[in-house]
Amino acid sequence: MGGDGKVRAALIIIGNEILSGRTQDANLAFIAKELNGVGVTLAEVRVIPDVEAEIIETLNTLRARYTYVFTTGGIGPTHDDITAECVAKAFGKPLIRNAEAAALIEARAKEMGREINEARLRMANTPEGATLIKNSISAAPGFQIENVYVMAGVPVVMQVMLAEVTPFLTGGSPTLSRAVTSRVSEGIMADGLSALQDQYPDIDMGSYPFYKPGGIFGTTIVMRHTDADQLDKAAEDVAALMRSQGGEPEFRDTADD
Amino acid sequence: MGGDGKVRAALIIIGNEILSGRTQDANLAFIAKELNGVGVTLAEVRVIPDVEAEIIETLNTLRARYTYVFTTGGIGPTHDDITAECVAKAFGKPLIRNAEAAALIEARAKEMGREINEARLRMANTPEGATLIKNSISAAPGFQIENVYVMAGVPVVMQVMLAEVTPFLTGGSPTLSRAVTSRVSEGIMADGLSALQDQYPDIDMGSYPFYKPGGIFGTTIVMRHTDADQLDKAAEDVAALMRSQGGEPEFRDTADD
Repeated sequence: MGGDGKVRAALIIIGNEILSGRTQDANLAFIAKELNGVGVTLAEVRVIPDVEAEIIETLNTLRARYTYVFTTGGIGPTHDDITAECVAKAFGKPLIRNAEAAALIEARAKEMGREINEARLRMANTPEGATLIKNSISAAPGFQIENVYVMAGVPVVMQVMLAEVTPFLTGGSPTLSRAVTSRVSEGIMADGLSALQDQYPDIDMGSYPFYKPGGIFGTTIVMRHTDADQLDKAAEDVAALMRSQGGEPEFRDTADD
Repeated sequence: MGGDGKVRAALIIIGNEILSGRTQDANLAFIAKELNGVGVTLAEVRVIPDVEAEIIETLNTLRARYTYVFTTGGIGPTHDDITAECVAKAFGKPLIRNAEAAALIEARAKEMGREINEARLRMANTPEGATLIKNSISAAPGFQIENVYVMAGVPVVMQVMLAEVTPFLTGGSPTLSRAVTSRVSEGIMADGLSALQDQYPDIDMGSYPFYKPGGIFGTTIVMRHTDADQLDKAAEDVAALMRSQGGEPEFRDTADD
């Protein structure tokens, strides 16, 4: 926990397909919102390739720095799935065949009429001492070891794994947000906004310009804090600033859209 | 350049709005593909908040490690736009009012009939010795200093800036890719695929399972290398592996879709 009472987490997205641009990551924003819902702030994300040394170094750096570390990707049955081995090495633990995981994978294979082979059973390998994270979609589980949560990269699978985990995280107060949008350009509001930021030093105030086809532009001001009353007051002041520049502010209770 | 002849780059995405999940990043995949087109491999991405110490530390770590470093976000006119100051501090250079940038911003303001104010002119601040990266959308430029390229976070603006920059990058051979997809599950192909990876050690072979509504699932194998003939040969072998498991492989010349 930082000096500000926030509980912070990092996310490590493991996968060459994200770095090559082939796959557009769909997990970051989802994880950020789910964590925020239980009072955990996503403080840093790293996207790294399927390379052992980089996975180990990144894991060890971030698990020392943050309360929680989540990883996505690299836990399937194929040769390029090396996350479990790397996590074991990062913790200095042996990689074992987890009997509970193997039973889950075998049961699913039987149910689907699929052969059970060594490749599929590789997905039952975890560092010694890990706790499984269940996967109702495709059976092969993720796992938790200390403050590190290892999840699948496929979004539907990651989402069911995250749902298994979030109820057990210890968070601070959830961060609430307010967004106020108008067609006033940010360059005109900047001085007034800076004064409002000084007036509300604890509120994280972000200014996001937008440009739409047809020469439409404007700015969304997003305010984030744990206290709803303070946020409402600040949002009213931002709206007044926009009106003073001829804008017609629109409010949103949440900035998550 | 690494020992493998690849030219590597890192991307730093600066912005609380990405980490909060409010904004879905739309720049990573675009930048990855554009860089690959000029023979530069995106090797690592970090998403960090608008916090001075983190921006400086991340910049200094990555600019020492990679041939090129790109940043997006934090170069607008408002109080939360601190990237230019942080880059100046990372390089130990003074932040100056860049006369060329100021002229561009003033000309655009005049053209649009907008007042020119100190907030807008803040966008003309660059580290001493920086070269501007032009922005035909909203005039306020990005800048380059040594191997660091500082760009806007708004995708349309970032894209015109990147187009200014890529022709001048010195890359290796562009990485080509082939994708072969079928409804064979990856657990069945894993052993055969591992043997093919051993047979083509220089090809980066990735296995990506997919799950679609209605219980449809399968696997896409993506192969990446600079040599088209080797890729075609490997893709044929992967297709044969899929056929041996009852699959009907579909080929794609590029994996970028």
